[in-house]
Amino acid sequence: MKIGLLGCGNVGSAFIKLLIDNRESIKERCGEDLELAAVVVRDLDRERPEWVDPALLTTDARSVVLAPDIDLIVEVIGDVTASKELIEAALQASKSVVTANKALLAESYFELEDLAETVGKDIFFEAAVAGGIPLIRSLRVSLVGERLSRVTGIVNGTTNFILTRMYEENLSFSAALKLAQELGYVEADPRADLEGFDAAAKAAILASIAFGRKVRFNDVQCEGIVHVRESDVNFARRHGFVVKLLAQCERIVVRSEDDEFSVRVFPALLPETHPLAAVRDAFNAVFVEGEAVGELMFYGRGAGGLPTASAVMGDVIDAAQNLRFGSTERRTRTKDARIVDYARLTSQFYVSVEVVDEPGVLASVAEIFGANEVSISSMEQIGLADEARLVFLTHPTTEGSIARTLEGLRRLRTVKEIGHSMRVVTEG
Amino acid sequence: MKIGLLGCGNVGSAFIKLLIDNRESIKERCGEDLELAAVVVRDLDRERPEWVDPALLTTDARSVVLAPDIDLIVEVIGDVTASKELIEAALQASKSVVTANKALLAESYFELEDLAETVGKDIFFEAAVAGGIPLIRSLRVSLVGERLSRVTGIVNGTTNFILTRMYEENLSFSAALKLAQELGYVEADPRADLEGFDAAAKAAILASIAFGRKVRFNDVQCEGIVHVRESDVNFARRHGFVVKLLAQCERIVVRSEDDEFSVRVFPALLPETHPLAAVRDAFNAVFVEGEAVGELMFYGRGAGGLPTASAVMGDVIDAAQNLRFGSTERRTRTKDARIVDYARLTSQFYVSVEVVDEPGVLASVAEIFGANEVSISSMEQIGLADEARLVFLTHPTTEGSIARTLEGLRRLRTVKEIGHSMRVVTEG
Repeated sequence: MKIGLLGCGNVGSAFIKLLIDNRESIKERCGEDLELAAVVVRDLDRERPEWVDPALLTTDARSVVLAPDIDLIVEVIGDVTASKELIEAALQASKSVVTANKALLAESYFELEDLAETVGKDIFFEAAVAGGIPLIRSLRVSLVGERLSRVTGIVNGTTNFILTRMYEENLSFSAALKLAQELGYVEADPRADLEGFDAAAKAAILASIAFGRKVRFNDVQCEGIVHVRESDVNFARRHGFVVKLLAQCERIVVRSEDDEFSVRVFPALLPETHPLAAVRDAFNAVFVEGEAVGELMFYGRGAGGLPTASAVMGDVIDAAQNLRFGSTERRTRTKDARIVDYARLTSQFYVSVEVVDEPGVLASVAEIFGANEVSISSMEQIGLADEARLVFLTHPTTEGSIARTLEGLRRLRTVKEIGHSMRVVTEG
Repeated sequence: MKIGLLGCGNVGSAFIKLLIDNRESIKERCGEDLELAAVVVRDLDRERPEWVDPALLTTDARSVVLAPDIDLIVEVIGDVTASKELIEAALQASKSVVTANKALLAESYFELEDLAETVGKDIFFEAAVAGGIPLIRSLRVSLVGERLSRVTGIVNGTTNFILTRMYEENLSFSAALKLAQELGYVEADPRADLEGFDAAAKAAILASIAFGRKVRFNDVQCEGIVHVRESDVNFARRHGFVVKLLAQCERIVVRSEDDEFSVRVFPALLPETHPLAAVRDAFNAVFVEGEAVGELMFYGRGAGGLPTASAVMGDVIDAAQNLRFGSTERRTRTKDARIVDYARLTSQFYVSVEVVDEPGVLASVAEIFGANEVSISSMEQIGLADEARLVFLTHPTTEGSIARTLEGLRRLRTVKEIGHSMRVVTEG
């Protein structure tokens, strides 16, 4: 079984190492003899780890994806446009494809899957969501007969690292971000992580697989962590919560119609006792709830060369066995997901408001909540210099009501600033 | 695709319910139309849930496993002897088999797997270890290219429930056992759970799959929880540990020879911060460590009709797709695992000794530790009526040294009783 590898960065070179170290044991255990036939790179002269055979290197990607003796293409370039063309060419040339490219999948998942189905080959992408955790195959195969109600994940290691440091070391957002940058956890352009787009791309893939419906990146309601402040995290800690950036995919059962789905990314207050609350630093975890299976959790490393390469290797072996038998994993998603009207969703909310410290202010603020039918569960007033911070936890209310409440508060003369409002996720 | 179901108890009837509720969505998502063709029961007259079609019931198991129009046999009887004959007959008649029978697998795993390989069909058993958790497929497929170093599981819900109640509610072993019995968590004969045999059967299966070597039930060193006392659990709690019954499979790297493996079941002191420490009551979890993938954890319900039926359903769909393509999952385990000499393994130990409270006792006890080269990390003396309890945590030492120490202590006149000695599992 001959493999063409596109890309030889962090993940690509780790994959080569794994292949060299484990080729014999894979042959013994699965009967697959995996041979690396070519490695496509941009720059032939760049220094590579000593286990990368220079004789395999080439800059000619097209001839690799079209080579008649190559059976399987592994794509770990990351770039969206170039990767898409190469993967399409590979599938059209009847090769199976393994990719770790979540940005590409977020844009072109269904298109590529349809093409794979047409040519009768596989496209696998375990590494695209939650790195080394065997999550995608579990959802695609083991749980495909299960009616899942909710999938809640911590799927972005960078933001989870920042929130963990804010929580555990009392760091400000910018100090925690700086620490993450020093440790190399942050991309050159940090927006995809910090504004939740990376998590949203993964949420769309997760929801599509979990519910068997097409969910697109643009269907995902997305909010990042750039507005989370020390004071928010401190409040959470004092009240038995942690703050986590969640990717949450939910089935909303609508009577006598097809189900609707909500797919969202948002920072949330999560009870300390929730299994996801213990997921620290750059680790990932996904909590899955199903009607028959109950609660499941998958936990592990969401990024890094070796864990990602490990997930790629699992896909390669699975795809190789399918190629040998002429079989393929058939998973069709013919229907678009009906996306819920997000304004109708309900949850508890955390709302923090900075006000002028003068008589009557609390009453005027509370009135706005009441006028929008938002019921308050608890309130805390924190005195600052010549102002005060009012922090509210609400009873369950709709997104629409909260939006109108914040709008109303913004118009009050006595309100100086409205901090971050965050959803409170309760257990189960 | 026609299914013959052997057994219609808790799991069997839950499986029928799942099949009825999800048949359409499975057809839509995987293209498999799963039809229940026959249900083998012992007693036709017993009352069944209303969703079980009486027309499908039969007592003639052999004609079902041999029926030419049945493609796939699901075995959820549980009985070892009868199940084995039926599964063999089904495989010989070229049917794929899904089973949840861990006791059978512990005895006959390799034999049945070889038979499946010979006839070119599948035998799947996701439900046999850790119930609804998609663990087996993750190890067999996703992680088959990974060099795993250690697999540590909480795989018996009954004992985990008992230990959780002892820890959280200060119950004695017998009070916690009584509570578990009242809740229906305990089998008529509780020994398989309490003495660790159930966990040992699962450990043998886990180790075989994780390491790609044959590990048999008799290879597993096994110790249960019947000797764990309130005072042991209290000591653990005071010192930041929990007590858990662990199934631990380890690769012991031996220079210039084939690796050796240790596969053990034992109650252990586990740091509160370990991911497995938070696994409460009847939940199961398995912590997996690999060279490339790093740390993974799988968590969920280890038992119960619906979670088990969910795992069976995942296997059925996978096997059905393989049947359609004429493919099969090839996983050969040709070599026996080299089992380590257990006496050479090292760990830290907890040792509790009840002694006569008189001068010089501590010195004589400590001398026995020293004479066997066991170094003490900490000691606590707890005064009782006319005696005292000495509790030791040792530095890492061998199993052999601890066995000799306990033997020496037993011979001391001043030692009244030696309590449970338990391994202390440190992080990573």
